[in-house]
Amino acid sequence: MLISEPQLRLFTQNIFLAMGCSEVHASLAADVLLKSDLRGIDSHGVARLSGYIRLWEKQRINPTPNIRIIHETATTATIDGDAGLGLVIAPFAMQVAIDKAKVYGSGWVSVRNSNHFGIAGYHALMAVEQDMIGFAMTNASPLVAPTFSGERLLGTNPMCYAFPAGKYPPVIVDMATSAAANGKLEIAQRSGKQVPEGWIQDQQGNPTTDPHALKAGGALLPLGSDREHGSHKGFGLSATVDILSGVLSGAGFGPWVPPFVSFLESPVNPPGQGIGHFLGAMRVDGFRPADAFKSDMDIWIERFKSASTIDPNQKVIIPGEPELEAELDRMQNGIPLVDAVAKDLNELAVKMGLKPLTE
Amino acid sequence: MLISEPQLRLFTQNIFLAMGCSEVHASLAADVLLKSDLRGIDSHGVARLSGYIRLWEKQRINPTPNIRIIHETATTATIDGDAGLGLVIAPFAMQVAIDKAKVYGSGWVSVRNSNHFGIAGYHALMAVEQDMIGFAMTNASPLVAPTFSGERLLGTNPMCYAFPAGKYPPVIVDMATSAAANGKLEIAQRSGKQVPEGWIQDQQGNPTTDPHALKAGGALLPLGSDREHGSHKGFGLSATVDILSGVLSGAGFGPWVPPFVSFLESPVNPPGQGIGHFLGAMRVDGFRPADAFKSDMDIWIERFKSASTIDPNQKVIIPGEPELEAELDRMQNGIPLVDAVAKDLNELAVKMGLKPLTE
Repeated sequence: MLISEPQLRLFTQNIFLAMGCSEVHASLAADVLLKSDLRGIDSHGVARLSGYIRLWEKQRINPTPNIRIIHETATTATIDGDAGLGLVIAPFAMQVAIDKAKVYGSGWVSVRNSNHFGIAGYHALMAVEQDMIGFAMTNASPLVAPTFSGERLLGTNPMCYAFPAGKYPPVIVDMATSAAANGKLEIAQRSGKQVPEGWIQDQQGNPTTDPHALKAGGALLPLGSDREHGSHKGFGLSATVDILSGVLSGAGFGPWVPPFVSFLESPVNPPGQGIGHFLGAMRVDGFRPADAFKSDMDIWIERFKSASTIDPNQKVIIPGEPELEAELDRMQNGIPLVDAVAKDLNELAVKMGLKPLTE
Repeated sequence: MLISEPQLRLFTQNIFLAMGCSEVHASLAADVLLKSDLRGIDSHGVARLSGYIRLWEKQRINPTPNIRIIHETATTATIDGDAGLGLVIAPFAMQVAIDKAKVYGSGWVSVRNSNHFGIAGYHALMAVEQDMIGFAMTNASPLVAPTFSGERLLGTNPMCYAFPAGKYPPVIVDMATSAAANGKLEIAQRSGKQVPEGWIQDQQGNPTTDPHALKAGGALLPLGSDREHGSHKGFGLSATVDILSGVLSGAGFGPWVPPFVSFLESPVNPPGQGIGHFLGAMRVDGFRPADAFKSDMDIWIERFKSASTIDPNQKVIIPGEPELEAELDRMQNGIPLVDAVAKDLNELAVKMGLKPLTE
């Protein structure tokens, strides 16, 4: 089923309004979710809307947060999100980073007491629109086992780096630090297929191809999959995200990051509050004239796009390129919703006293 | 053969002095190389000394560089290394970042016209000693093929993040963004062993376990090894390092990064000058009191160290821990040199008119 972008946006906005968000917050939260659906990252868009609502029902999301800076220097700040939607807290934090970068060249903000912030790329792109380089990362509830560990201690902890270019679209590296995203596992679970070895381990820590092994007490593996192929590097990257987002801000970290799902309780006596994020912006012209940088970015992109390839039909993909193609297509032709998500949204509308998305 | 740290340091310093470096630069360059040997990263220490000398003989390393800031804001700067040793340029750049961070909370420096900078960890640790978080990365000559590419377009482009802790040593994530480091391949080449699938591809882009395939026109693979296991993520990380180090500074980037080895010519008409680095420092107390951060880092470290493990004899390794253990051991007991490196250093001494390291 295809839904037009304006229709899905209005629906999403109304759900957030019904939750008690201000108009500004509802519109911003919808914008972050829609950006994900537009860019083809279906796992992080409106498919999660009912999850946010369930957390709100359990009073784990505050619809009217007092988001505030609790510590700062000229170019650094820590923000307390007051248990609000990460979808509005992270853009607030990135704006603080951008404002500092405008004056001092760079700005860096660590966030505590937040919730799931949608796609990291949304926030990093806010910097790119100002001719800045954008950084965005977040910790997440534990699903990943560090190298040699039998237990889950880290989230899929994504990191995003975004760079403006000249005549080409921005280069956007936006990636989970695990070998495979949880969404890919869920697809395999639904379709009853096996997954490649190197994505997950079972409860005893053995390699497995059974996608249900995660829910049965197994764990996702860090990028690199096993020690021989560099899983200690994926673990190191995930640790970096956890420390910058969680330890630096005073949020939960490691196994104490609260779960996104409402049926799991939050950890008892966590060392910090809520989920943590880390956002940064650096002015390109803090290093060299923006035009010179952008024209070299164009050279970089052209050289990689024109690389000789193994398969003549499979070009090298510039990071961010497929997502932009999806966005242009879906703005024009509408956003595809799988039946399960459409049904979920309609049920949500009923619960919130709104008109269903589809009849 | 075991050589004491002071003996190897003095020898190394004298080589740099004989090359024409100032006493301050010779001492600093020796310090960076020795740190690598002490920390057990034998591929980046004195084993490279003759390589630096050969580049100097070809006039590709300037022993008396005029290292200078060519562009800056309050918290950002670009430095031209004047074709000097990266071993002295990178510490200069990190000091600029630290000085900016002292005043404004953070400092970020991109470097062009440099050479190989040794281990990234050395530079990042300079920030940690000031209760700051340290970032260090560098691009390098092309050995790695992006996902789907049949040609090498990126270096092993390492990234390092270093965090101070309280009663425990700092957490130091210092990693090549390729699946395996070139040094590991060289060990397999010397011993005539096959390497695991997922480290390299051959000239046609096929998976191979032959360690000689790299020299025969093949390529190292990005972290993740293949598309199914996330090699596009390793490619994205390597691209990030290349852009922050090369494009942002005006250094060479992608396939135009000059080779470390003197027998390969530098690329013709490169879009930038020399090798590029990127260094950064953020004050911990720009985000929260340093003591609070450090005591939470201790909790983080203790939780990961005490994780239940798959094999009871193999604990989870905290990033940076094995290197510190090596350093303590080698400071006490001396630095092991393999015969080939000892022979190489003795020949180097003769060439430079110095006393050999060993008789």
